[in-house]
This record gives sequence, C-alpha cells and structure tokens, in this order.
Amino acid sequence: MAQAVVTEALSLNNPLFGCYAFYCAVLVLKMMFMSVFTAMTRLKTEVFASPEDAVFARSAKARARTNLIRDENVERVRRAHLNDLENIPIFLIVSLVYILTNPSYFLATMLIRIYALARIIHTFVYAVVVIPQPARGISWFVGFAITGYMAVQNLLCFLN
Amino acid sequence: MAQAVVTEALSLNNPLFGCYAFYCAVLVLKMMFMSVFTAMTRLKTEVFASPEDAVFARSAKARARTNLIRDENVERVRRAHLNDLENIPIFLIVSLVYILTNPSYFLATMLIRIYALARIIHTFVYAVVVIPQPARGISWFVGFAITGYMAVQNLLCFLN
Amino acid sequence: MAQAVVTEALSLNNPLFGCYAFYCAVLVLKMMFMSVFTAMTRLKTEVFASPEDAVFARSAKARARTNLIRDENVERVRRAHLNDLENIPIFLIVSLVYILTNPSYFLATMLIRIYALARIIHTFVYAVVVIPQPARGISWFVGFAITGYMAVQNLLCFLN
Repeated sequence: MAQAVVTEALSLNNPLFGCYAFYCAVLVLKMMFMSVFTAMTRLKTEVFASPEDAVFARSAKARARTNLIRDENVERVRRAHLNDLENIPIFLIVSLVYILTNPSYFLATMLIRIYALARIIHTFVYAVVVIPQPARGISWFVGFAITGYMAVQNLLCFLN
Repeated sequence: MAQAVVTEALSLNNPLFGCYAFYCAVLVLKMMFMSVFTAMTRLKTEVFASPEDAVFARSAKARARTNLIRDENVERVRRAHLNDLENIPIFLIVSLVYILTNPSYFLATMLIRIYALARIIHTFVYAVVVIPQPARGISWFVGFAITGYMAVQNLLCFLN
Repeated sequence: MAQAVVTEALSLNNPLFGCYAFYCAVLVLKMMFMSVFTAMTRLKTEVFASPEDAVFARSAKARARTNLIRDENVERVRRAHLNDLENIPIFLIVSLVYILTNPSYFLATMLIRIYALARIIHTFVYAVVVIPQPARGISWFVGFAITGYMAVQNLLCFLN
C-alpha cells in the first residue's frame, strides 16, 4: 500500500513538491543570511575567529585579541545559526519523505508554511531584536513539533 | 547503464525506500531528542547560553553566571549533538543516493539498520551513561565506515 | 508548467542526476575527512574534548588539561568543519531540487563542479596550509554564490 502511494507521489504530478521546493529555498536563503549576519557582526565588533581575518581587516585591535575574547553579539548570532543547523536540514529531509507519503494537501502545505514562518520568527527574536522568552522558545517549539509530527507520520507509514 | 538502474530505482517499486524512510525518521527523532536533552541538562545545572533564558527560568544563580561558566554535563550533551550534526545529515543524503544505485536489498537494509543502531549506541555511551573508550570510538567508526562505503559505491556507480 | 518539467526530470533519464550523485559523494568524503583530521590534530597536540579520550590515549598531559585549554590548531580544523556543516548540507539539498527544475545541462554541471572545487580549496587554505586572506574568503564566496543562485532559481521556478 505504502508502496503504491510512494510511486504516485514520486512521479510528481504531486503539487506538494512545488510547495516543498519553494519553502526549501526560502529556508536555505534564511540560513545563508546567518553566515552574512555573523560576518557583519564580527566586522562591527572587530572580533574575528582567525588571525588572518584580523590582518585582512587591518584591525590592530582585532589582531591583538583574536581568540582571546568572545563577543556576546557575535555569539548570539552564532547560536541562532547553530540552532538552524540543528533543526532545518533534518526538517528538509523528513519533509521530503513526508510529501511522498500522500498526506492531505491542505495539511502538508500548511505545516511547511508554518514551519518556515516559525524559523524566520525564531531568528528574528533570537538574533535581530532580542525579545524576552518565551518568544524564542515558542517559535522553536512550533518548528520542533512539526518536524516531530512528520517524522512520526513517516515512521507509521513505513512500519512494514 | 547507471542511468537505467536509477530510473528503475526511482520509480520506487523499490522496497528499499521504505527501509530508508523508516530509519531516516528514527535518526531524526534521535537527533531531536538531543535538543530536549540539552535543554533538560541546562535546566538541571542552571547553565544557560542566553541571559533571557536565565531570566525566564527565574534563576538568580543562572543569571549571574550566564556566559561565564560552561558546565561539563551540558558540554558533553552538546558534543554528542554536534557529532550527530557532523555525521547523520550527510548519511541521510548519501544513503538516499545509494538506494537509487540498485544495491543488494539484503546488504543495503543491513547497512541502514546497523547505522541507526550504531548512532543510538554512540549517543548512549557518549551522553547518557559515560562508558570508557573505545566504546564511543567503535560506535562512531561503524557509522563512519558505512557512510564512507556508500559514498565510494556512489562514486564508482556514477563515474561517467 | 513547472509540474511537467519536474516529472520529466525525476524520471531521470536526466543525466544531471549522475553528476549530482558523483559530486555529492566527493563532498561527503571531504567532510568525513574533517572528522579524521580533527582526531589526528587532537592526538598530535594531545588536546582532547572528553576526559575518557585522554585516558584512552594514556596521556597524562592531556588528562590534566582536558577542557582547560583549547589548541588553536584543533580549533582551526573544527572551524573549517563547522563551515562545511553550515554550507554543504544545504547545497546538497538545494542542488538536488535545482537539477529537477530542468536547468541547462552545461550550466548545472559546471556549477556543481565549481562548487565542489571551491569547497576543497576552502578546506585546504583554511586548515591544511593557512594562506592569507582573501584566499579563504573567495573560495567560501564562490560556494555561497552558487548555493544562492540555485536557491533563487528554485524560488522563481516554483513561484506558483
């Protein structure tokens, strides 16, 4: 049964794949933004990770303290980025398998859209404008719960 | 030749995909557990990464020391999680390509199952009950070797 | 329209998939090398992350200082590895979707090859032989720009 379902879904007259591909690109661009944001914060605070970066930025201040101090603004952006790395790649893989299990079109597209929105909010309240908890906790949990729901659905669908 | 093989495998009357999807979900749920485990350990030891978390936990102790100390219990769970991030997403991508190369059904399913088991053991001996080396080294290497085997098979299959 | 295109690409008489699979394996093997490289550097400098590793290495020196010092050589390899984690998994997912959008064969294969080459150069100039900036910055940016280009193409292709 699951077999037949997968075959059909993979022949992709499945419009769910378009939704997946679109929000996959949105989430990847969001993650790419974190790299740029980290670099910008490092330049502004003159806190670099590698000595050669301080040399290139012609920053005597930075050169002296590379590896000696950590800047909380840089670390905050890095934590937000690491949280993305912990959550988004596994979502992109699980949700790709999920759309092959022939789920309700309405439910699947809503889950994917809400996930993308939740992760964008997570980044915003974590690293752009720091908002007191539980703002970040809630946005993180929404994404976490959606990933977990899809993973469990995949488990059940392919249990034998 | 490789072409024809891929076409057949992707039309997915290939039962290997079910095995992949099942253990993909298992591994993703295992990784999600690491996030919860980290949060639990942070709460127990009152060592938080961000000041707003200490405020939310109403922990005066935590508030004073956020970013000043690192707790070895928290760091151990985080190292186990980072090791997952270094190993599992690339396995999920390489093994997806691998099952499209028409491998032996027995071999492929055994490799996927052993990989999942090895990673679960890795987490257990690293972060749940610390067992002396080489327990962690062996469980890590089993997963590493399986990923490497699949990657080399993919290389050879698509060499031209 | 996009629909029809995807169907054809996924039935994979699409030779682009072979190119993707080949360089996917190359990039995964490159990332696996980082794990080995980190372990080798830790052994050479006797700087371990976990006490049980120092015990196993029978290094009294290491046992005394685990978690107390960080070695710049180890940290450099780890930063290179983390940069891989930030960039390569999302590329592997975005480029898989990209080859399903029926791009020019010449362009797509060139982008994938240049990406793989840029990431290999990035590792080399970051962690093997440290070369002054902007060598690392340029190799990073080439990979970053290719990922961004593919993500934007996917966005446009699946915009409705």
